[in-house]
Amino acid sequence: MLSAELTISSKNYSSWSLRGWLLCKMAGLEFTEVVAPPDEKNRKELLLLSPSVLVPRLTHGVVTVWDTLAIAEYMHEWNPSAGLLPYDQAARAHCRAVSGEMHSGFQNMRSALPMNIRTRYQSFKIFSGARPDVERIKEIWTECLNHYGGPWLFGQTPTIADAMFAPVCSRFVTYAVELDPQLKAYCDHIFAWPLMQEWIAGAEAEPAEMVELEVEF
Amino acid sequence: MLSAELTISSKNYSSWSLRGWLLCKMAGLEFTEVVAPPDEKNRKELLLLSPSVLVPRLTHGVVTVWDTLAIAEYMHEWNPSAGLLPYDQAARAHCRAVSGEMHSGFQNMRSALPMNIRTRYQSFKIFSGARPDVERIKEIWTECLNHYGGPWLFGQTPTIADAMFAPVCSRFVTYAVELDPQLKAYCDHIFAWPLMQEWIAGAEAEPAEMVELEVEF
Repeated sequence: MLSAELTISSKNYSSWSLRGWLLCKMAGLEFTEVVAPPDEKNRKELLLLSPSVLVPRLTHGVVTVWDTLAIAEYMHEWNPSAGLLPYDQAARAHCRAVSGEMHSGFQNMRSALPMNIRTRYQSFKIFSGARPDVERIKEIWTECLNHYGGPWLFGQTPTIADAMFAPVCSRFVTYAVELDPQLKAYCDHIFAWPLMQEWIAGAEAEPAEMVELEVEF
Repeated sequence: MLSAELTISSKNYSSWSLRGWLLCKMAGLEFTEVVAPPDEKNRKELLLLSPSVLVPRLTHGVVTVWDTLAIAEYMHEWNPSAGLLPYDQAARAHCRAVSGEMHSGFQNMRSALPMNIRTRYQSFKIFSGARPDVERIKEIWTECLNHYGGPWLFGQTPTIADAMFAPVCSRFVTYAVELDPQLKAYCDHIFAWPLMQEWIAGAEAEPAEMVELEVEF
């Protein structure tokens, strides 16, 4: 078996780390977690002040791959039977489209509602610039759940899209974003996902020095 | 043959439109270009004020796919022999990683140096926040050209990565960014690419009403 290492940062704050970790786990890869220290470079990446080549980053044999979607496609190639992408061609294109939207967009939502798994706000005033992002995400989820029948975005099994939006479920719970019953059920489903539970346990147990990463996009 | 339509916006200003158009052309798809009018929604998308589902957007038979990387993967599936991704597994992961970096990052470079194909500045003071982005792009290109031998980023034929970075070549020329001879040769190579020449001719001929899109990210 090829040795595999996934470099991540904070489990409580780093949404990109969560996505990469879920994708590798979903594909069935056995890997060693390497936690990048909360140093200046890491902070700058989390604050989007410098390009993101540090986390998540997977090394697997001779392959080194960073960037969440690149890891997703690599994992899909490595184990196509894991179903990271839907089998149907049109659904697969749709899955990649909404995953791509999450990957390149929603900057305002990311900065207004940074992931912070351990924290719960009773109510939270969402910056008006972030509201179109929140509405678009609700629209994406509703379309997918209606079209493919749930409980995952693309039907009966989790895909790349669920990994991409899992941190958004956490954000919506942290910041008490109002959701209709269908979307609340989706968020509950993501929270009940054993892989998500495993990650959350890691976030709860994260040492105090990670607190300096409090601001994250 | 399935009918195909690609929705784009300004050829002079829309870097995402250029990427999607190049990818479809590289794959050998015959498609009709649909130009989205420079209306309020389009402007908001170009200004990153609202999520980007409008351009580029490809419909091909029953498939509808938006987001540049999703179009790239769809085109690669549709015609694998076009070589949109390198054949070698490690190179393919690397190609996806740098394409993903371009897709999700470099916000400061995008806002400081918006694509504007028709325009040339003699000199241009780059906002200091955008300089790490410019340096990281130079680093990506240098690594690829040294490792794979050029003239394209991944060797002898163009890949998704060249489509993703083509608008950056245009930006570097527009804003007179200093480049060493190896990187200048790469930009010259992209400009000499017949597909790029075809797009540039379209940008030069673009009607005046597109000028209201002058600010683009």
